[in-house]
Amino acid sequence: MDAKLQELCRQAHEDRIRVGMLDTDTKNRTLELAADALMAHEQEILEANAIDMERGRERNMPQGLLDRLKLDHDRLLGMADGLRQVAKLEDPIGEVMSMRKRPNGLIIGKVRVAIGVVGIIFEARPNVTSDAFGLCFKSGNCAILKGGSDAIHSNIAIVSAMQEALRRMNIPKGALSLIESTDRETTNAFMKMKDYVDLLIPRGGRGLIQSVVNNATIPVIETGTGNCHVYVDQFADQEMAVNIIKNAKTQRIGVCNACESIVVHRAIAKEFLPKLYAALKEYDVEMRGDSYAVECLGPDQPLVKDATEEDWGTEYLDYIMSVKIVDSLDEAIAHINKYNTSHSEAIITKNYDVAQRFLNEIDSACVYVNASTRFSDGNEFGLGAEIGISTQKLHARGPMGLEALTSYKYIIYGNGQVRP
Amino acid sequence: MDAKLQELCRQAHEDRIRVGMLDTDTKNRTLELAADALMAHEQEILEANAIDMERGRERNMPQGLLDRLKLDHDRLLGMADGLRQVAKLEDPIGEVMSMRKRPNGLIIGKVRVAIGVVGIIFEARPNVTSDAFGLCFKSGNCAILKGGSDAIHSNIAIVSAMQEALRRMNIPKGALSLIESTDRETTNAFMKMKDYVDLLIPRGGRGLIQSVVNNATIPVIETGTGNCHVYVDQFADQEMAVNIIKNAKTQRIGVCNACESIVVHRAIAKEFLPKLYAALKEYDVEMRGDSYAVECLGPDQPLVKDATEEDWGTEYLDYIMSVKIVDSLDEAIAHINKYNTSHSEAIITKNYDVAQRFLNEIDSACVYVNASTRFSDGNEFGLGAEIGISTQKLHARGPMGLEALTSYKYIIYGNGQVRP
Repeated sequence: MDAKLQELCRQAHEDRIRVGMLDTDTKNRTLELAADALMAHEQEILEANAIDMERGRERNMPQGLLDRLKLDHDRLLGMADGLRQVAKLEDPIGEVMSMRKRPNGLIIGKVRVAIGVVGIIFEARPNVTSDAFGLCFKSGNCAILKGGSDAIHSNIAIVSAMQEALRRMNIPKGALSLIESTDRETTNAFMKMKDYVDLLIPRGGRGLIQSVVNNATIPVIETGTGNCHVYVDQFADQEMAVNIIKNAKTQRIGVCNACESIVVHRAIAKEFLPKLYAALKEYDVEMRGDSYAVECLGPDQPLVKDATEEDWGTEYLDYIMSVKIVDSLDEAIAHINKYNTSHSEAIITKNYDVAQRFLNEIDSACVYVNASTRFSDGNEFGLGAEIGISTQKLHARGPMGLEALTSYKYIIYGNGQVRP
Repeated sequence: MDAKLQELCRQAHEDRIRVGMLDTDTKNRTLELAADALMAHEQEILEANAIDMERGRERNMPQGLLDRLKLDHDRLLGMADGLRQVAKLEDPIGEVMSMRKRPNGLIIGKVRVAIGVVGIIFEARPNVTSDAFGLCFKSGNCAILKGGSDAIHSNIAIVSAMQEALRRMNIPKGALSLIESTDRETTNAFMKMKDYVDLLIPRGGRGLIQSVVNNATIPVIETGTGNCHVYVDQFADQEMAVNIIKNAKTQRIGVCNACESIVVHRAIAKEFLPKLYAALKEYDVEMRGDSYAVECLGPDQPLVKDATEEDWGTEYLDYIMSVKIVDSLDEAIAHINKYNTSHSEAIITKNYDVAQRFLNEIDSACVYVNASTRFSDGNEFGLGAEIGISTQKLHARGPMGLEALTSYKYIIYGNGQVRP
């Protein structure tokens, strides 16, 4: 088992040089062929998915997870279309980021290159296979995919179809591999393949991400945990605040850029919170507040509860939010910087100085003034697509597009220079 | 003990916001005052260093290490001058890296910010204290220094002097701290302070770096291991090749950008290697070759030895080099990519296509044509100063200047936008 895993990682490592040098036309043509292959193999893929779905039902997989696991014609079309979209994105590889001549005549250029081998560890969402492959391949990287056991038949069928396209284009086979074994030992061994794999990106829930962070020796980019705050300042346009919080909380539940916590200035809490409650009632949003928030919301309201310390740091991914009252902007900033996950936070205010301070002092990947946190997304940011949203500060922060999957190297042109 | 460590890390974490927002003038003035403070406290610092030196001698510390540990008036002046140089560098913080308006009216800016809290783990070189503090502080980061026990008295005296300057400028005290405890438990606990520390940079030998990589849960940037190659192509200017290898091998021994391995095309080996041997003889450079290299060098020469497999991957940091003969450019590239540490490699050639292929296909932070690997250095690259040379591909690669100590965040200006 481990020998198979090791060989697969070694092959990707060996092929990284050739994959990193593929020209843009070849990469784009391959992505289009891979999209075609998905549709040409629709029957096998949907049959394989039916097996996963049946097993999921037998094991009483929750409805939400079953829905993520399910493939049908339209979803497969969406995956194929995703690959075609990536083909249209600009190729980041080879960009000369800077070049200058030094006093000794050396010409030093900084050139964008692929990272090498990227491992993606994900759960039961078969669409991640084509998404992750597309972005890794377009950025010149070899992708090693490790999906959850619940989707293994689907993943094998999808990856086989795409590999067929790679073979037709004579792409080195290390460009795309799937780890078919789904036991924990293999996953743990994979996370330690530091000699062959340059980067691990876990895509999934907090448990998966924490497990990768704790066990991997390969560098990891943490993604997608979002305890996102909206702060309603005393100088807020209250109607706008209601509108933005409603959007950030309810437009799509269960995503990392949804609002989980709100912070309200005491000066307007009494007036504002009942309006917010009324607007969120139709979605049955439970509001867990501190004592003054509960007082303002109405302690007898069925959806109002007392918050515990744990609530301030919780990403509910559900129709629940915490409500904290503060006496000042300082207190709001301190509260948010203490409990957030550095993903996305917004302030609603009409005051210029308050807005600027919030932008400067909140330690988060994306900081908004008067807009919904739901915009934290590669497409919305104009990056074309995203491999995830980084909540750490090294290498990439916030929505990660193709550039986040690249590194650089220095190339130096000399004519005999030696160091004095 | 751990409570003290934790409090020190927590304080730095708390102060990171204020330190990250310090204006450039305040930072520069503080760096200059810190430089003055080093000289004002010269007597205490040199006395403290004398204690470390005496203990080192008692423990039979090797002469090379004693030399690195030793401080005197000129070296202290050099440290103070280093801080003044950093004050003169451009402040990277606050740079607007991009800003654009999206179709929905959102204005999305990408702004350079500090990383937060940077931990530096180093060995018995007291000058690292002021170097690391200067670069971390100028880039808006809080620095937590953990030096080796051999230099603890020197480090305490140096850091105390600089902290005095910080207090005079009302800089939050988390901006600079030294972990005074030098036992292994404290070091290990420090490497796991992930809630408070954003980045660890080990500065020292391979053992130190590996220990940090293996034990840390905080992200690490690996630096400074260099098995650097020079490839002498069949189309090389042989005189230039001798000159460059002599420089790369002997100009300074024991540094990471020194040449450790040479690769020579078979077509010129017989002619070239005796010239190289003659030029390196005055430095007593031992040459460990494969069988044909030994044949060309002369098996009876006192400095010629047979190489073992282990030699190809060894960073000697000594007057020794390995010599590999290859039949082709392909073989040279494959050999180098297999055994290098992704630091710096050079080719000597007059052939355009060969040069271009080497630049493209060698997987290394710095790839040279016709120049010495010894130029891989922050100052030589025009970065002003360096905190180390990264041999990994995430975040920063090659010589790391102030920018490598920064991250970015997105700031988004809206006027009520919600996601449809």
